[in-house]
Amino acid sequence: MSNDPLVVFTPSGKRGNFPAGTPILTAARQLGVDLDSVCGGRGICSKCQITPSYGEFSKHGVTAKEGALSEWNSVEQRYKDKRGLIDGRRLGCQATVQGDIVIDVPPESQVHRQVVRKAASARAMIMDPAVRSYYVEVAEPDMHTPTGDLERLGIALKEQWDIEDITAGMSVLRKLQPVLRKGKWTCTVVLHKGHQETVHRILDIYPGFDETRLYGLAIDLGSTTIAAHLTDLRNGAVVASSGIMNPQIRFGEDLMSRVSYVMMNPGGDIEMTNAVRTALNALTDTLSAEAEIQPSQIMEAVFVCNPVMHHLLLGIDPVELGQAPFALATSKSLSLHVGDLDLTSMNPAARVFILPCIAGHVGADAAAVALSEAPYDQDELTLVVDVGTNAEILLGNKTQVLACSSPTGPAFEGAQISSGQRAAPGAIERIEIDPTTKEPRFQVIGSDIWSNDEGFDAAIATTGVTGICGSGIIEAVAEMRMAGLLDPKGLIGSPEQTGTPRCIPDGRTHSYVIHDGTADGGPLITVTQGDIRAIQLAKSALYAGARLLMDEMGTDTVERVVLAGAFGAHISPKHAMVLGMIPDVPLDKVTSAGNAAGTGARMALCSVDARTSIEKTVRDITKVETAIEPKFQEHFVNANAIPHATDPFSILRSIAPLPDVSFNTGGGEDGGRRRRRRG
Amino acid sequence: MSNDPLVVFTPSGKRGNFPAGTPILTAARQLGVDLDSVCGGRGICSKCQITPSYGEFSKHGVTAKEGALSEWNSVEQRYKDKRGLIDGRRLGCQATVQGDIVIDVPPESQVHRQVVRKAASARAMIMDPAVRSYYVEVAEPDMHTPTGDLERLGIALKEQWDIEDITAGMSVLRKLQPVLRKGKWTCTVVLHKGHQETVHRILDIYPGFDETRLYGLAIDLGSTTIAAHLTDLRNGAVVASSGIMNPQIRFGEDLMSRVSYVMMNPGGDIEMTNAVRTALNALTDTLSAEAEIQPSQIMEAVFVCNPVMHHLLLGIDPVELGQAPFALATSKSLSLHVGDLDLTSMNPAARVFILPCIAGHVGADAAAVALSEAPYDQDELTLVVDVGTNAEILLGNKTQVLACSSPTGPAFEGAQISSGQRAAPGAIERIEIDPTTKEPRFQVIGSDIWSNDEGFDAAIATTGVTGICGSGIIEAVAEMRMAGLLDPKGLIGSPEQTGTPRCIPDGRTHSYVIHDGTADGGPLITVTQGDIRAIQLAKSALYAGARLLMDEMGTDTVERVVLAGAFGAHISPKHAMVLGMIPDVPLDKVTSAGNAAGTGARMALCSVDARTSIEKTVRDITKVETAIEPKFQEHFVNANAIPHATDPFSILRSIAPLPDVSFNTGGGEDGGRRRRRRG
Repeated sequence: MSNDPLVVFTPSGKRGNFPAGTPILTAARQLGVDLDSVCGGRGICSKCQITPSYGEFSKHGVTAKEGALSEWNSVEQRYKDKRGLIDGRRLGCQATVQGDIVIDVPPESQVHRQVVRKAASARAMIMDPAVRSYYVEVAEPDMHTPTGDLERLGIALKEQWDIEDITAGMSVLRKLQPVLRKGKWTCTVVLHKGHQETVHRILDIYPGFDETRLYGLAIDLGSTTIAAHLTDLRNGAVVASSGIMNPQIRFGEDLMSRVSYVMMNPGGDIEMTNAVRTALNALTDTLSAEAEIQPSQIMEAVFVCNPVMHHLLLGIDPVELGQAPFALATSKSLSLHVGDLDLTSMNPAARVFILPCIAGHVGADAAAVALSEAPYDQDELTLVVDVGTNAEILLGNKTQVLACSSPTGPAFEGAQISSGQRAAPGAIERIEIDPTTKEPRFQVIGSDIWSNDEGFDAAIATTGVTGICGSGIIEAVAEMRMAGLLDPKGLIGSPEQTGTPRCIPDGRTHSYVIHDGTADGGPLITVTQGDIRAIQLAKSALYAGARLLMDEMGTDTVERVVLAGAFGAHISPKHAMVLGMIPDVPLDKVTSAGNAAGTGARMALCSVDARTSIEKTVRDITKVETAIEPKFQEHFVNANAIPHATDPFSILRSIAPLPDVSFNTGGGEDGGRRRRRRG
Repeated sequence: MSNDPLVVFTPSGKRGNFPAGTPILTAARQLGVDLDSVCGGRGICSKCQITPSYGEFSKHGVTAKEGALSEWNSVEQRYKDKRGLIDGRRLGCQATVQGDIVIDVPPESQVHRQVVRKAASARAMIMDPAVRSYYVEVAEPDMHTPTGDLERLGIALKEQWDIEDITAGMSVLRKLQPVLRKGKWTCTVVLHKGHQETVHRILDIYPGFDETRLYGLAIDLGSTTIAAHLTDLRNGAVVASSGIMNPQIRFGEDLMSRVSYVMMNPGGDIEMTNAVRTALNALTDTLSAEAEIQPSQIMEAVFVCNPVMHHLLLGIDPVELGQAPFALATSKSLSLHVGDLDLTSMNPAARVFILPCIAGHVGADAAAVALSEAPYDQDELTLVVDVGTNAEILLGNKTQVLACSSPTGPAFEGAQISSGQRAAPGAIERIEIDPTTKEPRFQVIGSDIWSNDEGFDAAIATTGVTGICGSGIIEAVAEMRMAGLLDPKGLIGSPEQTGTPRCIPDGRTHSYVIHDGTADGGPLITVTQGDIRAIQLAKSALYAGARLLMDEMGTDTVERVVLAGAFGAHISPKHAMVLGMIPDVPLDKVTSAGNAAGTGARMALCSVDARTSIEKTVRDITKVETAIEPKFQEHFVNANAIPHATDPFSILRSIAPLPDVSFNTGGGEDGGRRRRRRG
């Protein structure tokens, strides 16, 4: 083992020993860590900003002491003095290794930032935004009939636009007088009036006729990712979209582990609230820069999120959501000021609208999906599944709509999977396995070329093949089942049972090799028995939730399935059905809604009418609580098989091969293990 | 001259040289500076907090360099760490002199704090406050019909109190869930609903039945003093009153000099806004401590103030108020959150109500006087005069009410007077001059014994005779006029002309000696020719304003005069009339309204109905702008004489001697000076 200091990079986990004095940027490049630089290490571009972490990191086996990085040199200090650096940040090209250290690469310092595939759909929306601007000519003050400037502005709005009842916050009152005089008693005012508000609130005021466009942010605040669409409030056009990881992940990957974190760590809710608000401010800045607008042009933000994210965004301790009866602090929609949430990047008077929550486990994100997919407008009995770390499930038609949520965990998003990774360039997203040869071929994000086609190596030269993303793992497991490599119980066969050397022994179980990059120093990408179990748990929870709603509805079948959510658009319906994620319906009845929650957020951003509509919908929805339904457990167990232990899936069987194999020898993997323990 | 460091104390101006190492508290005691201490200099009580000022003080002839005070010692540091000290503050008993320094003694470190005589009147008010508390029993959450805790609380309020449409800010949402559980689903909620608000806002919530009393602050924010009445919102009782100097005084004594300060110093408005807000927070703490309540029990603050104070409180640049057409940013009443004004001491959800302004020169304080004195309800033509640094003048009856303001300056408050001082113990507040002997006798604040009566010296032993306060100077000038020491033009006679050695030469003019304490090391208290001129300017402005309203009304007489304001209760009607401050009416028609602005503030605090009423009144009042009325100047010049050059004041003459003396020899003081200059 080297005596040189150890450098561990997060989030990649890449690590290596480097001689003291090695710049962090150099170390990152040598390890293949994704750290940006434009100026070539001259301390000018600041793209290589990193955050060193000090303390004991048992997870990484590192203790980082003070002095593990070099002192600030003149280049770095000058940059900080002139341009500023976020507290705790260093320039990777200037700071050098002096001792063992953990280095976090923030998202904005990564070249290949995550492509969160929550792209906003192009769904047409009737524009009816809460925020509009108006040009007005205001009467000059008259000593003989003295009135305030605000009052004369109010009279002008009434006379010229028939708008009554205006109010203004301090940020507007402070600039009102100079603006009116600069504009020679003409101005453009930005007004806000939500669906439940009785007055028009002046958010901003510009001198004269001002064509500054107004923007809004539609934000889908997920447990794992935060997706935001910067939207032109004139026409609803999305001018920039961006997704970042929810920084709360470091407190726990799924909702319940975050709630636990709060229970175990007093003040943990405040930490998480601060983390997500800081991230939202950074995201606002990023989107504004991308669209080349000023953040102060952003006048409203609309949030959809699950209940735990909802409470943590608002700064409310989510502990009640972690235990029956799962009571929300508030379930109604909320109209707030950005200051209430410390969202400091937008216009200082900007407003926040948060969609209502349906129940303690069914949040504003499900409400947004309901708004977007409108099951209450359907003739066919429609199942809407929003697949994320937590799945939101809606079932209904014009007669009735039911809703529940189910704790699928993050496996569908590539987490808890041995070769799993975020949906980023280099990740395997599509897989096919030849049922005869048992050989796989795949595509990675960033290229449309299959791995067995010409030009693949060239196409992926810059990214490499780095892992499997969420939609990739679903296809992989389903293809393995169709190719006879996996039996209905979820056991991977041995090389002998499957006839392929790609099924390799892995402890007492087997793994299937999808890609072996080790010859070139790359990873060995396999699907392990553990991966299969993780996917089985996730899909069983999803199916059991849907089945529970079908019970409540008194039906064994649905007529239509809509896949929504972070990667809904990327799931192949056939593969999802082979896996038994969703009920058995004709393939052409399975459609993708893209990021329906995000779409719902955009609809609410662009239309106060949509806000009224969703309030009514949420009131009318029948809420089903999976956690207390005894049948949920039974449905969950039956859904563990692939595709299902008891439901026939006859439509699926007519179109996809589901070989009747069984690899359970001598009591099977689980049984065998259990016996050995007892012996 | 001593080589020891020089210590200058403000606001007293006392100064002395002290050996390096002398504690500030010791220096203060030796100089007789009023600096409190309870623990005897052991760094425990913190009563002796002082604020050192560094820099060049040409006014004091001192340059205070860094290091002029000792480093923090362990006692001082421990106090700061444990209990906290306001930034910039030191403990006077621990910090020692090391170099020349200016030391400010903040009001709360003074034993003999100013007695601002804005005592709240006992006027009965119909209680109809915006803030009330309600006990409710809330349904427990039910997983089968999930709703938020806030929504179930809303249902309970509807069912149990018939209150609909509730909302809650973040401070309440954050504590809602634990409070409901702690109270076993019973709670006491504090609701606020102003006269223009459509929803009830939950300001706070306590578990179970909570008898915590709720309080409000009625604040009269004057140019010179800030008077606040801590009021029990159940019954309107004032539980504590306090007055402090407006710290903005250091930026300018009167309104226009503060506006000038902003014009000359970019950011000066922010400095003044911060100064007054900091003072308000300290005042809130002081009053709470005095009444032995928690500041978080204060749920609403109502402000009355003149337009410049209004804008500076709100953080609005008052520059437009300093020039025609004197446009207000907003003239309507304002309902705000304490956070909008950085009022951090009260309940975090507390509300602020600011009364409407009448015009650019006639503020919410005049509106409050109108609310309190209700001239629109009078049969008799009533003149209401609120005497402060700026005088607010109302004239009217059931037919019509007119309003204006007049820039009297601070002379009536004892400022700009040679022996003038604030109304504090030791100040002369009443004076009589024997018309035959020309000998004066007086009373000082803190004692009822006349200076020529037995026991006077003992009674004033602790305070001494220190100066003349505002009401004292008015009596002094009027008594001098009645005793024939002062002629109608305002000239003080010589010893020969008046026959008393108390008229002493003072340059080319004369001064009248009221009290000579120099034998005991005390002050020589005189009324100088300059003092007379200052009072003449102030009273002329006041009378001219009243006369202008009488012109507008088409009358030469009024039927009733109400004296309101900081020291209205202390002005003798007869003396005010001798001075010609107010029009000639029978003495029994002159009444004192005490602090009518403060009373108006209390009425608005205790009654939303009063808020509705004042909005209507302000709309209906006819505003008169003195600054642009050509006749104002003519009225001002005629009012310079004592009592008046042209108005007969025949009622006054029938009851008070106004000797027809003239001390203008050889062209008089002014004429003489003018000739000399020309020569």
